[in-house]
Amino acid sequence: MKKLINRPENIVAESLAGLVEAHSDLLRLCADPLFVVRRDAPVVGKVGIVSGGGSGHEPLHVGYVGRGMLDAACPGDVFTSPNPDQIQAATKAVDGGAGVLHIIKNYAGDVMNFEMAAELCQAEGIQVEAVLIDDDVAVKDSLYTAGRRGVGATVLAEKICGAASERGDSLSTVAAIGKKVNQQARSIGIALTSCTVPAAGKPTFDISDQEMEFGIGIHGEPGRSRMEVKPAGEVVRMMTEEVLRDLPFQAGDSVIALINGMGGTPLIELYLVFSEMAEVCRREKVQVVRRLVGNYITSLDMAGCSITLLRADDELLALWDAPVLTPGLRWGL
Amino acid sequence: MKKLINRPENIVAESLAGLVEAHSDLLRLCADPLFVVRRDAPVVGKVGIVSGGGSGHEPLHVGYVGRGMLDAACPGDVFTSPNPDQIQAATKAVDGGAGVLHIIKNYAGDVMNFEMAAELCQAEGIQVEAVLIDDDVAVKDSLYTAGRRGVGATVLAEKICGAASERGDSLSTVAAIGKKVNQQARSIGIALTSCTVPAAGKPTFDISDQEMEFGIGIHGEPGRSRMEVKPAGEVVRMMTEEVLRDLPFQAGDSVIALINGMGGTPLIELYLVFSEMAEVCRREKVQVVRRLVGNYITSLDMAGCSITLLRADDELLALWDAPVLTPGLRWGL
Repeated sequence: MKKLINRPENIVAESLAGLVEAHSDLLRLCADPLFVVRRDAPVVGKVGIVSGGGSGHEPLHVGYVGRGMLDAACPGDVFTSPNPDQIQAATKAVDGGAGVLHIIKNYAGDVMNFEMAAELCQAEGIQVEAVLIDDDVAVKDSLYTAGRRGVGATVLAEKICGAASERGDSLSTVAAIGKKVNQQARSIGIALTSCTVPAAGKPTFDISDQEMEFGIGIHGEPGRSRMEVKPAGEVVRMMTEEVLRDLPFQAGDSVIALINGMGGTPLIELYLVFSEMAEVCRREKVQVVRRLVGNYITSLDMAGCSITLLRADDELLALWDAPVLTPGLRWGL
Repeated sequence: MKKLINRPENIVAESLAGLVEAHSDLLRLCADPLFVVRRDAPVVGKVGIVSGGGSGHEPLHVGYVGRGMLDAACPGDVFTSPNPDQIQAATKAVDGGAGVLHIIKNYAGDVMNFEMAAELCQAEGIQVEAVLIDDDVAVKDSLYTAGRRGVGATVLAEKICGAASERGDSLSTVAAIGKKVNQQARSIGIALTSCTVPAAGKPTFDISDQEMEFGIGIHGEPGRSRMEVKPAGEVVRMMTEEVLRDLPFQAGDSVIALINGMGGTPLIELYLVFSEMAEVCRREKVQVVRRLVGNYITSLDMAGCSITLLRADDELLALWDAPVLTPGLRWGL
């Protein structure tokens, strides 16, 4: 294993130290229990948005704390859920009196710990609602998940719910918008290589130079099938068709597209993937009206990509276009 | 070789198709000769800024075309210089009557072809000036370079010259500002793995699981030495000290820092690198007043990073802070 780290057990703390120092205008770190919080939290009268999960998916979640997106993020160890103490403390730190929304990727540990934290907060009189993200069409159940995994739609939900809370929507409205995002979004991922978890020191899975994993999870969980590497055009067509037929998306739909790199795939390839995906959408008369191309929800150093499509009406587009200022996503500010 | 591509010889064209489709609000593609140009070029009365070079360093250069940075970028094949025809056509396309600045990384082929294009344009009555970037402190001469290589400072020069041209500075002023950026910036890079050029199909160099290359170039050119992999703290201290002592930076200096990923290194590691670099700067009383952390000038899928520091006075900081709207760099718009 070759990584730019010191001791594997310190990677999260040392990386967070860099994040909050680099973006001290936006963020503060609370060390114990550990979470990253918007510098000016709590914002009185605004619904707070909290997410979190295992580290190793950066910029998700800690890189999306700022204005117009998350108010706080709770990082666990690499690929390990944050504990209820972290989530409870973050929730209290961002409660400006209008309640707090939890955005949770559907992994058993995350779900359990967010639910426990929500109960503790509610017992203290804080209103908490939750949006569960389970957009991955690859598999029904997975290594860490009952039901579908939460992947790329998390980025879209965090942006859109953040914008809704920023414009003053109520907790129930922001939660309803988050659920709508999840209902109308679908994703699939593929991997060419495994990631290497620092504490493990070796690749999570073996894969030959001729193979790819179709339907990979963001922790290196097995996908739907192991297959021979194919040209990008063919891979992306298969991925896009899986996503389109699952919702299903229909001719005439407008979509926000996220072409996401898993951490080890260069941008020159991701733009090629975007081009191939756009071609399939054109053929199916699905209109790509907004797009993000880059590393937004990663899996450490894994080579691969995911495609997320979100059917977007005018309301979702307006929330998408609203200004955002975070380390990982920024426009209009 | 596993990559998300179709045929290796088409990677540049197919990736560019994705880039200009994804960012059609900002960019146009001219297919023959090949260059990417700001949608509303030429901007009358504004100095045009043109850069270019081999592909494989994305988002550099094509991802920096837009408002407040480059007016056009000329992509060669992967790690191959663009030809004079491309540069001449791009220069003509962005000339709004105030002349055009070429920003050139110091590689023999780039320098030769930009000079040839400049002469052709001057013969047609277009004023052209050039800024040569040679900020890499690692080696004196290199595989493709007489003198120092041009690396991370290119990103900073493109941003700052773009801002100067946007505010209406004359060609000679913009060129002088670009030269000042180059004079006051220094960089060094390291690699943990090789990149793989698609047309070659195999890694550019061999490196064992216990080794790193200190002083690597952005094409996988050899660095200053091959050494055992060390903890990030030690690697970054060595890198930062090399950069600081070369200019030399001095106690009391304010700097813009670029912590750049080579394409295959995840953000969690880059923020850790930033933290270690900031620690060295603090010790040397060099104040990091602005910073970029991410993949800005890459080497395909290489794992590794580079550190660039630019000594910045109030004028350079104001130009740095000015709004920019490109696929790869965006703030204030």
